[in-house]
Amino acid sequence: MKTKFAIVLSGCGVYDGSEIHEAAASMLAVDRNGGAYQIFAPDAEQLHTINHISGEETKPNRNMLEESARIARGDIKPLSEFDAGYFDVLFFPGGFGAVKNLCDYGVAGINCNVNADVANAVKSMFERKKIIAATCIAPVLLARILGNITITLGNHDESLISDVNHFGANHAVKKATDICVDADNKIFTTPAYMATANISEVFTGIDNLVKEILKNI
Amino acid sequence: MKTKFAIVLSGCGVYDGSEIHEAAASMLAVDRNGGAYQIFAPDAEQLHTINHISGEETKPNRNMLEESARIARGDIKPLSEFDAGYFDVLFFPGGFGAVKNLCDYGVAGINCNVNADVANAVKSMFERKKIIAATCIAPVLLARILGNITITLGNHDESLISDVNHFGANHAVKKATDICVDADNKIFTTPAYMATANISEVFTGIDNLVKEILKNI
Repeated sequence: MKTKFAIVLSGCGVYDGSEIHEAAASMLAVDRNGGAYQIFAPDAEQLHTINHISGEETKPNRNMLEESARIARGDIKPLSEFDAGYFDVLFFPGGFGAVKNLCDYGVAGINCNVNADVANAVKSMFERKKIIAATCIAPVLLARILGNITITLGNHDESLISDVNHFGANHAVKKATDICVDADNKIFTTPAYMATANISEVFTGIDNLVKEILKNI
Repeated sequence: MKTKFAIVLSGCGVYDGSEIHEAAASMLAVDRNGGAYQIFAPDAEQLHTINHISGEETKPNRNMLEESARIARGDIKPLSEFDAGYFDVLFFPGGFGAVKNLCDYGVAGINCNVNADVANAVKSMFERKKIIAATCIAPVLLARILGNITITLGNHDESLISDVNHFGANHAVKKATDICVDADNKIFTTPAYMATANISEVFTGIDNLVKEILKNI
């Protein structure tokens, strides 16, 4: 029986959705290390849509599920159909979509709201003592929902760490190829593009994370 | 001195642009094996834009350069600025964008036209006896432009092979982790998603392709 990962995306592109390399790295790492995955995304509008050359907002806005389907090659389900009883691991790749679409920390800071399907999925896994993983900026989302956990966002950033502490969580400084394991709470995180600009390090870090998750199943 | 790859994208998503995993795999393989890359795309409209869940066309249409910038994390140049004197390798990942946007083989068949910037880039490299590489369906584009070369599109497909032969090119059957080397013409191809549905095999095939290219520099 393969370990079953639910990978949750938030669009398609680092500035308004899922970071594409991290999403692909997550799928690759699960498959290469013997796991199985299903891609999910909330069926909801993005906070906004960004031209990735100019950085400016463009219209019309796009839908997270439809854009995430580009990364999933069409094989995707709405997050409302996620069943915590079926999956072993809930996995959030990074990209600004994690803090613009899955929650709005990127604009609202510590007063951010969380998408209801995302909050339900995370809480359901946590209550069942199942593994939850996140990369890049996405661990902020877990801190916001779960409070007293330990995560990494890579380098020491006063402002980010202050907000994470405000949520009741602890921050561990890590390199891109390192991972952060909160064994008591079964929270697995790695910094990915928060701690490097190098694609190979991102793939290595995420592969390390998935390997460690599989050791703990 | 690192070997310099120009990676040419055609949008962001398998059904109307670049296949995202193949694009990421190309960038990763170049970096991991010690090369350097710059991403390019034509600054032109896609043939159309496809909802990757329903398969239906959506409006408004999107621009190849802007959408490819999502995969490139904003670090992209218009293909009109490509300089064959500077680069060692011209590399085309697959996805339907290669036969919808870079040329229109996907709708026009053997009577297809090729984007002018793409034709110029390919011919400039070929005249300089530099390496040109392509994955998935993208080798069709090279057959259309260059004629008498040998490529792979993976499995034996009568219709595709007939068209490739019409262009004056030869087809070699290959598995997803195999590569096809036309040493005389310096054409390197691998089937990627034309010959598998498995992401690990796609990354392995593209890594094998890049390793073989670097051996031949």
